Amino acid sequence: MKIGFVGLGKMGGKMVERLLNHGHEVVVYNLTSKEVDEAVSKGAVAAKDLTDLVGKLDGRKLVWLMVPAGKPVEENIAELVSLLSKDDIIVDGGNSYWRETVERGKKVAEKGIHYIDCGTSGGVWGLQNGYCLMYGGEKGACDFAEPIFKALAPENGYIRCGESGSGHMVKMVHNGIEYGMMQAYAEGFEIMKKSPYDVDLEKISRVWMQGSVVRSWLLELIGNALEGNEELDGIKPYVSDSGEGRWTVQTAIDFDVPAHAITASLFTRFESRENDSYAYKLLSAMRNQFGGHEIKKD
Amino acid sequence: MKIGFVGLGKMGGKMVERLLNHGHEVVVYNLTSKEVDEAVSKGAVAAKDLTDLVGKLDGRKLVWLMVPAGKPVEENIAELVSLLSKDDIIVDGGNSYWRETVERGKKVAEKGIHYIDCGTSGGVWGLQNGYCLMYGGEKGACDFAEPIFKALAPENGYIRCGESGSGHMVKMVHNGIEYGMMQAYAEGFEIMKKSPYDVDLEKISRVWMQGSVVRSWLLELIGNALEGNEELDGIKPYVSDSGEGRWTVQTAIDFDVPAHAITASLFTRFESRENDSYAYKLLSAMRNQFGGHEIKKD
Amino acid sequence: MKIGFVGLGKMGGKMVERLLNHGHEVVVYNLTSKEVDEAVSKGAVAAKDLTDLVGKLDGRKLVWLMVPAGKPVEENIAELVSLLSKDDIIVDGGNSYWRETVERGKKVAEKGIHYIDCGTSGGVWGLQNGYCLMYGGEKGACDFAEPIFKALAPENGYIRCGESGSGHMVKMVHNGIEYGMMQAYAEGFEIMKKSPYDVDLEKISRVWMQGSVVRSWLLELIGNALEGNEELDGIKPYVSDSGEGRWTVQTAIDFDVPAHAITASLFTRFESRENDSYAYKLLSAMRNQFGGHEIKKD
Amino acid sequence: MKIGFVGLGKMGGKMVERLLNHGHEVVVYNLTSKEVDEAVSKGAVAAKDLTDLVGKLDGRKLVWLMVPAGKPVEENIAELVSLLSKDDIIVDGGNSYWRETVERGKKVAEKGIHYIDCGTSGGVWGLQNGYCLMYGGEKGACDFAEPIFKALAPENGYIRCGESGSGHMVKMVHNGIEYGMMQAYAEGFEIMKKSPYDVDLEKISRVWMQGSVVRSWLLELIGNALEGNEELDGIKPYVSDSGEGRWTVQTAIDFDVPAHAITASLFTRFESRENDSYAYKLLSAMRNQFGGHEIKKD
Repeated sequence: MKIGFVGLGKMGGKMVERLLNHGHEVVVYNLTSKEVDEAVSKGAVAAKDLTDLVGKLDGRKLVWLMVPAGKPVEENIAELVSLLSKDDIIVDGGNSYWRETVERGKKVAEKGIHYIDCGTSGGVWGLQNGYCLMYGGEKGACDFAEPIFKALAPENGYIRCGESGSGHMVKMVHNGIEYGMMQAYAEGFEIMKKSPYDVDLEKISRVWMQGSVVRSWLLELIGNALEGNEELDGIKPYVSDSGEGRWTVQTAIDFDVPAHAITASLFTRFESRENDSYAYKLLSAMRNQFGGHEIKKD
Repeated sequence: MKIGFVGLGKMGGKMVERLLNHGHEVVVYNLTSKEVDEAVSKGAVAAKDLTDLVGKLDGRKLVWLMVPAGKPVEENIAELVSLLSKDDIIVDGGNSYWRETVERGKKVAEKGIHYIDCGTSGGVWGLQNGYCLMYGGEKGACDFAEPIFKALAPENGYIRCGESGSGHMVKMVHNGIEYGMMQAYAEGFEIMKKSPYDVDLEKISRVWMQGSVVRSWLLELIGNALEGNEELDGIKPYVSDSGEGRWTVQTAIDFDVPAHAITASLFTRFESRENDSYAYKLLSAMRNQFGGHEIKKD
Repeated sequence: MKIGFVGLGKMGGKMVERLLNHGHEVVVYNLTSKEVDEAVSKGAVAAKDLTDLVGKLDGRKLVWLMVPAGKPVEENIAELVSLLSKDDIIVDGGNSYWRETVERGKKVAEKGIHYIDCGTSGGVWGLQNGYCLMYGGEKGACDFAEPIFKALAPENGYIRCGESGSGHMVKMVHNGIEYGMMQAYAEGFEIMKKSPYDVDLEKISRVWMQGSVVRSWLLELIGNALEGNEELDGIKPYVSDSGEGRWTVQTAIDFDVPAHAITASLFTRFESRENDSYAYKLLSAMRNQFGGHEIKKD
Repeated sequence: MKIGFVGLGKMGGKMVERLLNHGHEVVVYNLTSKEVDEAVSKGAVAAKDLTDLVGKLDGRKLVWLMVPAGKPVEENIAELVSLLSKDDIIVDGGNSYWRETVERGKKVAEKGIHYIDCGTSGGVWGLQNGYCLMYGGEKGACDFAEPIFKALAPENGYIRCGESGSGHMVKMVHNGIEYGMMQAYAEGFEIMKKSPYDVDLEKISRVWMQGSVVRSWLLELIGNALEGNEELDGIKPYVSDSGEGRWTVQTAIDFDVPAHAITASLFTRFESRENDSYAYKLLSAMRNQFGGHEIKKD
C-alpha cells in the first residue's frame, strides 16, 4: 500500500522505517530535509511539500500525520484538507486532546474527508517491538487503513476503539495510567533508597521481573536505567510533562472520576520543576507567624 | 534437602507442592488436618505438631513459616525457638511489618538460631510461574537455604536484599507499588468506562499488552477479569487491604518520602468500605450552614 | 443610587434587601414573580422583563446580574447588551469560570458597555454580615459602581482585584480554598469520631474557637451544625459541588500549581456520590485475580 | 494556687507569665538559668532542679511540664515520679504522641500519681489571647487543676476531652487540621500569584477577613506575613514539621480514615525539603528510557 507520511521526528522516522520493512510504499515529508534524506536512504520517496506529497499518491489517498499537538497539527490538516478529495483519509498519529480531535474531525468531514485519530504507544522501542495502536473514526476508513496499522503494530496490537476521538481518548488514558505507574515505582524506589539497608536497587528490579505482581515493561526499563548508575548520578530531579497527564485529569473531572493517583503524579512533576515555590514560602511564613518557628533564609 | 513447612493456606499449600516437584522432602504441619492430608497425597510427610515436625528433621534444621502476620507468627516462632538448636533456621515467608521482624530476629538470635525474613510474591500463580522471593538475614544462613529459594522461584527470581528485615521491607515496598499501580489502572479504566464512547475495555487491555508502555502482568489480569464480564457485575465495590499498604505509608513517613500515589491508593480502599462517612456528612452539613445548600436526607 | 437587579434567588433576594436597607433604589426582575413581590414589599420597584427594567433606569445605567452560571448568564447578557448603551455597566455577581468571563467581557466591550465580574462570598449570612466582594473590570466603571459594593459589603469588605476576569478568578480561588479547609476539618473530625474516646465534638469545636490556631468562621458553623445532632443523623453522606472547585483545579493545572489538597477535596466529593464505583470493583477483581482474595458479592 | 513549672521555652516562658498575671504562684525550673532569671523577674520562684522544685510545693502538688516530646518528657517524668506522692499531678502540656501518652499514664498511675495530657494551642500569641487547652485524664485530677487551665485559657477556652490520652489526641487532630488549612491557603495564594493578574495578595487576604467564607485566624496571619513583603523575599521555600502531622496520618490509617488533604499537606512539606529527590530522578530516567525524552543534567 502506498501512503503519505508527514513528520519524521523521534517517532515518525522509525515508523516509516517499520512500514518500509513491511513492504509498504511511503512518500515522506518533513520540515527539515535531513530526516527526509535518511528515510529515502531506507526506501521512502521524498516529497518537497504537502502538495508534492499528495500529488505522488494515487487512488484513495491516506496521509499519516506525526507532528506535535496544537498548531502543527492544525496547520497541516488545514492544508491537507485543501489538497485531498472526498473519501481520502488523514490519520493523526500524534497526541491531541480528544475533545479537540472531535471538533477537528467534524470540520474535516465537511469536505467528505475522513479523519482517524490514532494513539501510538511504544516510544523509541516501537521500531523493534511494534507500536501499540488505538484509533477512532469512521469504520470504513479504519478498515481501509488496516494494512498500515497491521504493519506498524505487533501481533494483535491495534484496535479501533470507536467513533472519532476515541483513539486519542484511549491513548490519553493510557498515558495517564503511565503517569500513575511511574509515580508508584518512583515512590517505592525512593523508600528503598532511604531505608537503612544497602539494597541493590537494580537487582531488585530485575528479580521483581521474575514472577512478582509488579512486573511490567516499565520495571524492565527501571532496571536498564539503574544498570551501572544506581545513584542516577548526573540526572537532574526535574520531570517534564507533555500534556496527556493534564488532559487526563481534566477529563477525569469532567466525568466525576476521583483520579487521586494520576493527579498526584501530575502534581509531583510540577513540584519537581519548582525552584522557588510561593506556596512553600507562605507555609513557612505562616508557621513563623503563629508559632514563632524559625524561617530559613535564602 | 529436607525442611519443615508450617502453614498450608492459599499460598503455603502450593509452595509445598512446588518444593516437592523440585525433589525436596517436606515435613508439613497445619492447624487443620485436611490441608496436611492433601500435602501428604502429593508426597509430603505429615507432622502432628511442631515438636513432631522438628523431630522429623535432621542435621541443620530449616523450618519455613507461612502463617498470618501478628499473633500466629509470634506464637509459632516462640515454640520453634524452644525446639530448635543453635544454627538452625526459621524462614518467615509471610508478610510481617519489617520493623517487627527486626526485633523478632534479635530475640531469635539470642538462642543462636537464624531468622530469615522472606517476602513472597506471585499469589495463586506461584505454583505455575514460581514465586518471586526477596529475603533478608545472616548471609551464611541464607546461603544454606538457597536450594529452597531456588526451587520456589522462577529463574533469577530470588534475591538476598541484606540484613534482617530487608526482605520484608522490600516486599512491603513491592506491595505498596502494587497498590499504586492497581489504583492507576482502576482510575484509567473508570475514565474510559464513563466516556461517551462504547469502548471494549477487555480488548483495550489485551491490545495494550502488545507493545504499549503500560503493559504489565496486572494488566493481563485485568483482561482476564473483564473477559465475559466487562460490567464487573456481581462484584461489590469494596476493596480490602491486608496491612502492607499501611506499613508502606508509615515507612514513607518515617523516611520523609512524599508517597502521594501509594497513600491515595490506600485511602481509596478505606473510602470503598465506608457506608456512612462522618466526613462526608459534615461536609454536607457545612455547605448547608454557610450557603443554605440542600442536605440530602437519609 | 438607582440600579437594576436581575435574579432574586437565595443570594439575590437578600442582596436586594441589603441594598434597600442602605438607601439605594432597586428595580428588580426575576423569572418567577413571587420573589419580585417579596422584594417590592421591602421597597423595590418591579420590572416585568429586562426591557421594562432597563427602561426604569436613568443616566448611566447599572444592572446587577445574580443568575446561575452558564446559559442563564449568557442569555441575560445578550439581551442586556441589546438594551443598554455605551458606558452602561453590567455586573455579573454570580460564579462564572473566569476564562469565560474574559471572553464575555470582550464581546460586551464591543458595544462600549462595561462588564464587571464580581465574586460574592458570605452565603446566606450576607444580609446580616455583609457580602465579601472581589471584582474585576475597567477602573472607571468599578469606581462608578462603588457605592453599591460599599452597601453590600461589610466595612473594608470589597476590593477591585484588577482587569476583567480577576474578580471571578479570585472568587474561584476563594472557593477552592474553602473546599480544602472544609476537607481538613472533615478529616479531623472523622478521626476524632472514630477514636476510642467519647469526645464531645460540638464542645471541641466551640473551645477551638477560643484562641486555637484553627479558629475560623467555618469552625463556628461546624459547631452550629453539631449542636444537638453530633451524630449528624438524617444527613446523607453525599456532597455536591457547584463548579468552582473544578475550575480551581483546572486553573491550577494551567499554572503548574501542585494543588494536592484542593484537588483531593474535589475528588472526595465525587467519591461521596459514587454508589457503584467501577474503579473499586476493578480493584477488587484484580485482588481476586492475583491473590485469590475473596470478592464481596453485591 | 501554687504549682511547679518545668520548661521555659518559647511557649513555657509566656505561660508562666500569664499564670503570674492571674495571681498564681509558680515555682520554675529550666535547663538553662537565663529563662529562670527572667521568670523570677516577673514574680516566679526559682528552683535549681526538680528536687528543689518539688520541695518548694505544698499539699497536693501539681507540676506542669512544657518540654520537647520524646526523651525530655520521658526523663522529666521518670524523675518527677520518684519525687511526687500519691494523688499528686503531672500535666504534660507539650505535644506527645497520644498512644505513648496512654502508656506513660499507665506507668505513672502505678505510683498513684495522676498524669494529665494537655494540648496547648495559641503559639506565641497565647500570652495575649490566652491558650486554647484540651486535656485528658482522671476527672478528679482535672478538676483540681482547673484554676490553672482557667488562668491560661481565654474564656470558654479549655475542655476536658476524656480519659488519659484524649487531650493529646485532640491536639494532634487540631494540628493535622492546621496542616490542611495552611496547605489550602498556600495552594490558593500560589494560583493567584501565578495568574495573569497583578493581584494585591495582602489586600485580598484582608478583604477576605470581612464576611467571606474562608475568614480565619490563619488568614489574618497571612495578611500580616504579606504586609510589606508580598513576594515573601528572603524566605526559603522550606517547610519544617514537628511530628503532629505524622501522628495524625498514622492515626488516620489506624482508624481507616481517608485523610487525603492532611496527608498531602504533610508530603508537601517533605517535598519542600528535598534537594535531590531520587523519585524525581527516576521518573526522568524512565521517560528517557521509553520515550527518548531528554534528561536534564545536573
